[in-house]
Amino acid sequence: MEVRYAIGLWLFGSIRDRFATYHPERDLRGKFEEASRVKGAEGLEVIYPAEFKDEQLDEFKSLLKEHGLKVAGLLVDLFTGPKWINGSLTSRDEKLRREAIALAQRAMDVAKEISCTTVSLWLGQDGYDYVFQADYRKAWDWLVEGVREIAGHRSDIRLALEYKIKEPRAHIFVGTVGKALLIAEEVGLKNVGLTIDFGHALYSFENPAESIVLAHRLGRLFHLHFNDNYRDWDHDLITGSVNLWDLLEVFYWLEKIDYKGWISMDIYPYREDVVKACERSIENLKLAEKLVRRIGIESLDECIRIGDATKTVSTLWKLFL
Amino acid sequence: MEVRYAIGLWLFGSIRDRFATYHPERDLRGKFEEASRVKGAEGLEVIYPAEFKDEQLDEFKSLLKEHGLKVAGLLVDLFTGPKWINGSLTSRDEKLRREAIALAQRAMDVAKEISCTTVSLWLGQDGYDYVFQADYRKAWDWLVEGVREIAGHRSDIRLALEYKIKEPRAHIFVGTVGKALLIAEEVGLKNVGLTIDFGHALYSFENPAESIVLAHRLGRLFHLHFNDNYRDWDHDLITGSVNLWDLLEVFYWLEKIDYKGWISMDIYPYREDVVKACERSIENLKLAEKLVRRIGIESLDECIRIGDATKTVSTLWKLFL
Amino acid sequence: MEVRYAIGLWLFGSIRDRFATYHPERDLRGKFEEASRVKGAEGLEVIYPAEFKDEQLDEFKSLLKEHGLKVAGLLVDLFTGPKWINGSLTSRDEKLRREAIALAQRAMDVAKEISCTTVSLWLGQDGYDYVFQADYRKAWDWLVEGVREIAGHRSDIRLALEYKIKEPRAHIFVGTVGKALLIAEEVGLKNVGLTIDFGHALYSFENPAESIVLAHRLGRLFHLHFNDNYRDWDHDLITGSVNLWDLLEVFYWLEKIDYKGWISMDIYPYREDVVKACERSIENLKLAEKLVRRIGIESLDECIRIGDATKTVSTLWKLFL
Amino acid sequence: MEVRYAIGLWLFGSIRDRFATYHPERDLRGKFEEASRVKGAEGLEVIYPAEFKDEQLDEFKSLLKEHGLKVAGLLVDLFTGPKWINGSLTSRDEKLRREAIALAQRAMDVAKEISCTTVSLWLGQDGYDYVFQADYRKAWDWLVEGVREIAGHRSDIRLALEYKIKEPRAHIFVGTVGKALLIAEEVGLKNVGLTIDFGHALYSFENPAESIVLAHRLGRLFHLHFNDNYRDWDHDLITGSVNLWDLLEVFYWLEKIDYKGWISMDIYPYREDVVKACERSIENLKLAEKLVRRIGIESLDECIRIGDATKTVSTLWKLFL
Repeated sequence: MEVRYAIGLWLFGSIRDRFATYHPERDLRGKFEEASRVKGAEGLEVIYPAEFKDEQLDEFKSLLKEHGLKVAGLLVDLFTGPKWINGSLTSRDEKLRREAIALAQRAMDVAKEISCTTVSLWLGQDGYDYVFQADYRKAWDWLVEGVREIAGHRSDIRLALEYKIKEPRAHIFVGTVGKALLIAEEVGLKNVGLTIDFGHALYSFENPAESIVLAHRLGRLFHLHFNDNYRDWDHDLITGSVNLWDLLEVFYWLEKIDYKGWISMDIYPYREDVVKACERSIENLKLAEKLVRRIGIESLDECIRIGDATKTVSTLWKLFL
Repeated sequence: MEVRYAIGLWLFGSIRDRFATYHPERDLRGKFEEASRVKGAEGLEVIYPAEFKDEQLDEFKSLLKEHGLKVAGLLVDLFTGPKWINGSLTSRDEKLRREAIALAQRAMDVAKEISCTTVSLWLGQDGYDYVFQADYRKAWDWLVEGVREIAGHRSDIRLALEYKIKEPRAHIFVGTVGKALLIAEEVGLKNVGLTIDFGHALYSFENPAESIVLAHRLGRLFHLHFNDNYRDWDHDLITGSVNLWDLLEVFYWLEKIDYKGWISMDIYPYREDVVKACERSIENLKLAEKLVRRIGIESLDECIRIGDATKTVSTLWKLFL
Repeated sequence: MEVRYAIGLWLFGSIRDRFATYHPERDLRGKFEEASRVKGAEGLEVIYPAEFKDEQLDEFKSLLKEHGLKVAGLLVDLFTGPKWINGSLTSRDEKLRREAIALAQRAMDVAKEISCTTVSLWLGQDGYDYVFQADYRKAWDWLVEGVREIAGHRSDIRLALEYKIKEPRAHIFVGTVGKALLIAEEVGLKNVGLTIDFGHALYSFENPAESIVLAHRLGRLFHLHFNDNYRDWDHDLITGSVNLWDLLEVFYWLEKIDYKGWISMDIYPYREDVVKACERSIENLKLAEKLVRRIGIESLDECIRIGDATKTVSTLWKLFL
Repeated sequence: MEVRYAIGLWLFGSIRDRFATYHPERDLRGKFEEASRVKGAEGLEVIYPAEFKDEQLDEFKSLLKEHGLKVAGLLVDLFTGPKWINGSLTSRDEKLRREAIALAQRAMDVAKEISCTTVSLWLGQDGYDYVFQADYRKAWDWLVEGVREIAGHRSDIRLALEYKIKEPRAHIFVGTVGKALLIAEEVGLKNVGLTIDFGHALYSFENPAESIVLAHRLGRLFHLHFNDNYRDWDHDLITGSVNLWDLLEVFYWLEKIDYKGWISMDIYPYREDVVKACERSIENLKLAEKLVRRIGIESLDECIRIGDATKTVSTLWKLFL
């Protein structure tokens, strides 16, 4: 396992929800200044073009250089603008579908320019809120065709589908690990894979470790997001603040499958000092890596080989002896 | 049962979530203009002072008159401003707690001035996101004391606690019908009761009809909010778009307990024409009233008396014969 | 659409849960006698060999003849016996895995003998309750290999994977429509598909209609189970007792995709007269078929084409005008 | 805090669910023999009269003596027999309501005889599965009157309401901490309080620590049950196997409120060695007590006083440094 930690640049803007605004808005330079204060973070994940426009590319590059940061991932913005609120790749409007594809392809080109290997596609507005609202047949055809066309644009950049079961739509098409992998397999291109968000997996009642193994098993685990929640909603809490054992199980499997790549913090510290919350989150993940080794990979191998829950729980709780 | 329908004035501002903004912001006059287009709505529910300041009171009154609308309820704004994001009545800061109490008392005075009998207290920021974050003992003492002090300010205005299990906090103190009634009973004042939101009840896995009966049983059913969801989150969908039978059961019980009062639409039509979505919601509720009578109160009495689920389901499905 | 209705034979045995037993046990003849009283049911779904052993095959055939019933589906019993409680196709014990495969293959042969075209595989004990309990890599390999070996046994019988997210295991491997389809696609045989249970789909927060369309899109929709619940658990309630609109949406899509096949009742009427609860369930589904036509396929096509939720809700509620 | 640990005697019978039976049935002596092997357990919780009849009282007493065990609690069986499947205190049948009250009163007398101070009332069959099935008004009146009549039988035994939101009914009346306390307060007797089950609290989306504090605040925290789950269902897993921090928060508050009493294991080790699973569960709780002290009560006091989530999470994770 070779992991590097990154933070979402969007965490340093005005975090808000439908009731209140929790932090001040910042421009690109301001966000970089905050982000660069996060100890342990070597990279950034950025929403393009919401966070920097094409004309800011040079500024963006020099900010990266200035702060010694890499780009862990580019997230295509198909969800913040008013034009996307009824969908992007599955919009009823062919013009919008074309525009979405073109934007994602453009994001791949931009990624190349900033030495980022992974573009994430989170299709949060592509879904439905009501029964009899979506044409599921067309939507799934459009999804598969759209992803194929985007990924086919260039094979040297990986396109990572980030699934999430709901929010902002009541139902999102690319909602679960199974559905995301099904699309990737149907598309059939090697550079199509998944961004697995620990919290998204948890609150669709997946076990994040199993989801990671499933994606890896098909050669499609590209990127990881971390945060935490109560298995009920995407609360985006500080990592390790709710679920400890699931976190350790994830790191055990990252070790087993020898994951080499980035892990991005996608927390939403509405009421916290954002820099400190990010630092704590990274610190906890680094500790989680160590805790797995402290328990012992072989001990855990043995637990899994035998499958005796009591013995397994004893092994985990030895951490506290 | 004597019901009048109202709409939340806030529906006519910029509806947004943490990802996007879905509608244009409007000033007070603009909101009134939109709201007054909703056929079937006789009243407004307003967030004070977020939607009108004290200095706008005269303007507000003349807008009411101009548009022939009543005020169904005043909702005290203890949740939109940055000052409240860590709580109002349960803030660690005594000054803020005092300010929250004073604001709610002031809201009662304002309500009096605009012939509104019910002030709702939705304490959405009073809760916690993490374990070991809240001092539950103090918080519950503050809640009870705060509510007592507010309600004690004047007995001619009813103070209605609106419970909700989560959002924006991961855990909200006043989260369920049981907790809200427990506070009301401990406070012990006659003018403390509940605003029951159909959707809030549903997604905390209550049965809304039962919650309504429970509140009524203690003489504390003051006000109602309607919307709909998938029992998983406060999606605030068009009424009747998801759950039909629960809606009919509510109207059956409103008839049985002879509810006399307002019903406010608290939907969030992110991607819809707001005026039409409100009209549809009111229309559906009026139809639901009729459907209960079409099935027949006595038939339903008999179903409940016997408790045979198959017979009950047959009775309900006779609607379609 | 050409649909015939069936009932699970197991409904006529002793329905129990972990606290109580709700109905008397019955032998094969006794179950047939009850089942044959259900008006509207033309077929049975049977758990093999839990409900009839190989040596009872002749008795079973004559009971079918005697009561004029067909076999809608055979469900392989890999979940009731003590031997399967730690898994069947994913058991750590190779001998058990072989035995499970052989039993399922034998079920396909038996199905052929009783003119049943579909064998359902519900792997309810194949999963895990704790973290660090399952070897996800091996388990998924075993699943795919096992299903391939079973389905490969003969191509004239369809093997239908019935997914369910939990119960009796806290996590079941074949848990969602996405995962089930992923297995089917990886296996790559034409006679591998899905049994979609309306309730299972609902409580894993899928939209049943979408799941049906997804399976059909890949030519893998083989069989359907119906019941109802509150989207929280597999309560197996009378169909149509909770969710109306979702039911209508399903029948709309069954019409659109021209589903030809069986629909089995998989309800658990713990406290009800089982015969009457089954009759009511079938009656409701037949009514649901008609309601979709009453609203009008073209009207609904138009709703979906436009995607305006308010208009859609209006169209649905016209049922009541 | 002075805590003693107990185990449910029912864990040593045939644990089953609606699909399979997982362990062999045992008679009273057999159950005692198993239970007495659990290291760390000083007491038993028993379902009366399901687990011992009045005529077995002497045998029961000598078994207690023989094995050196105390009775931590008596649970009145108003949920296993066929007679109770439609409710006990809220049955439509007045005769059954009277019988339920008499049985619970008898349980109080028996408790006295076996030096047990707490009788738990878990009304799992008192609820409803369908809308329009229950008469909520009558049910709540019956609940309050029934509890009052039972508790009024004698004041030297405490009557502890154990709430649970669902299972076996889809909706249980005494479903949440708020509702249970509301009943206790309305009854108004000092010997009416709560049994709080950690898992029941979790999966009705309560925070168990908050629920404990709420019950204590009203002088009504009588008894505790422990197990664990994924916040979605009463899986009754080994304690500490899923949720660590919530467990520590509970022990912190038990210390703060100086809880003196029993803690019973109410786990369901379907597929595990029951003795070992119980031992592990008790061991984990004893460790949890220590971990709270290791972190430091004052440190945690300070965390709560300040309410800074990042600092709190840091404090918790110091356990691993």
